[in-house]
Amino acid sequence: MKKLNILTPSGFPEFSPAQEAVKQHWIRIIEQTFESYGFASITTPLVERQENLVAKGGDPKEMYVLKRLYDQEDDPSHTGNALRFDHTVPLALYVARHFNEIKFPFKRYTMGPVLRGERAQKGRFRQFDQCDIDIIGSENLSLAHDALMPAIIVEIFQKLRLGDFLVRINNRKILIGFFEHLGIAPDQIKDVLGVLDSFEKKPASETKKAFSSLGIKEKEAEKILNFTALKGKDNQTILRSLETVKAGEVFEEGFKELREVCEILDMMGCSPFVRIDLKIARGLDYYTGTVFETYLLKDNGSLDTALGSICSGGRYDDLASIFTGKSLPGVGISIGLTRLLSQLFEAQMITPRRSSPSQVLVALQDAAYLSQAITMARFLRGAGIRVENYLEPKKMAKQFEYADRLGIPYTVVIGEDEVKNNTLGVKNLSTGEQKTGSPAEILNYLKDNL
Amino acid sequence: MKKLNILTPSGFPEFSPAQEAVKQHWIRIIEQTFESYGFASITTPLVERQENLVAKGGDPKEMYVLKRLYDQEDDPSHTGNALRFDHTVPLALYVARHFNEIKFPFKRYTMGPVLRGERAQKGRFRQFDQCDIDIIGSENLSLAHDALMPAIIVEIFQKLRLGDFLVRINNRKILIGFFEHLGIAPDQIKDVLGVLDSFEKKPASETKKAFSSLGIKEKEAEKILNFTALKGKDNQTILRSLETVKAGEVFEEGFKELREVCEILDMMGCSPFVRIDLKIARGLDYYTGTVFETYLLKDNGSLDTALGSICSGGRYDDLASIFTGKSLPGVGISIGLTRLLSQLFEAQMITPRRSSPSQVLVALQDAAYLSQAITMARFLRGAGIRVENYLEPKKMAKQFEYADRLGIPYTVVIGEDEVKNNTLGVKNLSTGEQKTGSPAEILNYLKDNL
Repeated sequence: MKKLNILTPSGFPEFSPAQEAVKQHWIRIIEQTFESYGFASITTPLVERQENLVAKGGDPKEMYVLKRLYDQEDDPSHTGNALRFDHTVPLALYVARHFNEIKFPFKRYTMGPVLRGERAQKGRFRQFDQCDIDIIGSENLSLAHDALMPAIIVEIFQKLRLGDFLVRINNRKILIGFFEHLGIAPDQIKDVLGVLDSFEKKPASETKKAFSSLGIKEKEAEKILNFTALKGKDNQTILRSLETVKAGEVFEEGFKELREVCEILDMMGCSPFVRIDLKIARGLDYYTGTVFETYLLKDNGSLDTALGSICSGGRYDDLASIFTGKSLPGVGISIGLTRLLSQLFEAQMITPRRSSPSQVLVALQDAAYLSQAITMARFLRGAGIRVENYLEPKKMAKQFEYADRLGIPYTVVIGEDEVKNNTLGVKNLSTGEQKTGSPAEILNYLKDNL
Repeated sequence: MKKLNILTPSGFPEFSPAQEAVKQHWIRIIEQTFESYGFASITTPLVERQENLVAKGGDPKEMYVLKRLYDQEDDPSHTGNALRFDHTVPLALYVARHFNEIKFPFKRYTMGPVLRGERAQKGRFRQFDQCDIDIIGSENLSLAHDALMPAIIVEIFQKLRLGDFLVRINNRKILIGFFEHLGIAPDQIKDVLGVLDSFEKKPASETKKAFSSLGIKEKEAEKILNFTALKGKDNQTILRSLETVKAGEVFEEGFKELREVCEILDMMGCSPFVRIDLKIARGLDYYTGTVFETYLLKDNGSLDTALGSICSGGRYDDLASIFTGKSLPGVGISIGLTRLLSQLFEAQMITPRRSSPSQVLVALQDAAYLSQAITMARFLRGAGIRVENYLEPKKMAKQFEYADRLGIPYTVVIGEDEVKNNTLGVKNLSTGEQKTGSPAEILNYLKDNL
């Protein structure tokens, strides 16, 4: 028999049980925070009509299509479908499909896998989970919604306890206006934004080369680099510097938008975690105003540019006109869950320790006490404690080892004495602390300590 | 420009925002219950090597493979991969891949989409979510684990408030032993189990025809139908009747297993919701002992066989030997989430009413009070209430309509008077009840009423 290769296909990662527990913990925090701001969970199919994905700018080179293993049996409804490569195009389609059921502004979040047929390499996967929130307006969407995005993200990253981080904010109209004012041709602006987007990942010489290959003169390139390097001790200071720049109407509009968003960020109490940074351009075509990127900070306070942006997004004027005939403005932000977690695991910035949600293991000292053990677990579970029974008749040492390996903090034992006296023994596996008492006493002890 | 067809591809369903809210509520209940019994969430890739899926009995006719849109650019690592059609084969692969990190018995749950290239029809989809729990033992797995499955399912269906339901339980050894004893050839037993599995979905004449086309004589067919029709007022009564049947060793083994599982179900307090039913055969090859199916009960107490089994599973002796070289026994059960919800929505057995997780909408009476509105929302959110700000400067009637349409129960208003007196107004949108008070008073009122 041919030996099977049991590895996951290249680019389709899988976490260990302990890593999965961290992922699950993160997902709970992210979901709860999204919902605490009124975002509703919406899931869309993994598969859409290929023509719709291509129409909304999907890169066909990276697109995966779905085929039946035996093509000859295909009915036509099996063909022409491709796998989603992000959550934005499916959102546009969802809004178009459910337009009459949706009340705007539509606040939705989604979590789940997207697939891209990229070259698999370190930190780049073919299937990865993205957590997206977006707010879609009908006709208008006030700038306060732009401020809401970093406010939510700040709350999430605080709860995830990843250490210091910074949300870098900009407005593409500021960049576009400035470039236009410099005399850069409209059809070159996208490329200039692209150069800016990869600026931090490359040596200065390459950036210079990239500008020159676009036909941007050295003097202009210098001006762009000087302008985008603008710094200040806080957003107010940066805004005051920006206010003095005269670069035409588009620039002015971007400046006013950015100032308003910063004012509302103050109201939301998250200004200390958000900093204006004119180098933030976002590569994607569809952003039209506010843009964000989020970076972890190293111990010395500098941006962790090796890890890159861990959460990015922005404002777009037109989500779905190609599907709805209506131009719906939106703003959204996305956490690349798989990519971020994999990198943090690899860099040992997170060390997973538990692989079970159980708080208590009820051990089985003797098969004769199975009924008591089950009753005890039901009693604790009824009080809201996550508890499992060990249901194999194995030595106590084996059972304690099981709890220890899974990171279950407490073990409850019911033995001969306990059954006779209607008591229980409880043990904290990390401290070794033990206690005997009535079921009610043990429940109180656990409630106090968990 | 060609008009785009924005519908989801055939067989790839999508719920409305209000239906999604029901789904989300269900997922929370299911997850919390699984975790309260110590099951850990594990997710596997959507995509596996085709040869592994086929090796473990996947039906190649239904299998979807993944291809890049532009085949000519493929590198070999892009080919030979197919989409998972259930969660059991990926579990087997996961256990094989992480064998040294797993501590047995391994209790995992998973939720997520599986894909099958079936003919799309009512209630049958090409992508659908399954919620699976399984326990995998190393070498042994006690029968108490079999009893745990219906116990968990009973708790979930009680919490979902779907009305009365019944978990029907059987042991395939009882059926196989009985068939052998009747003289049915070993290679026919699988087919006889198949006839039994579809027995309730077909008229009696068709079942007779199916038996006869297998070469089962009318007398034997009669005996099978009489035997599997065995009834009793409770499991004890049925077990006493079964005890008198003499049908060889395999039958006896199955009987003893079933009796033990029923004893433990008593300890778990869920016997009233679980009934022995010898008609339960489960079509799938790999079940070797205990099998379950779950049915909703109609108002007259009869099984809703039109809806069919809403949650099925059983014991299997060999999960992963093809991948690990070790024979790992397991027991599992699965809820077909998408299928069940779609049917309940269509039959209007569930009427979704809310499409937002928000408990409170803080309205914006005047753009001048934006700061106060944001502060108030932060205050309530800090107390654990899910609250959103309305951030568009629109008429109050529009804002109330928004809350009403989304099913947000309370609206908080901050107007000129409120700002002057540092008070708030709160309105219950369904009763019309209104109240004015300090922020602390309003918070207490909301806490008492939510």
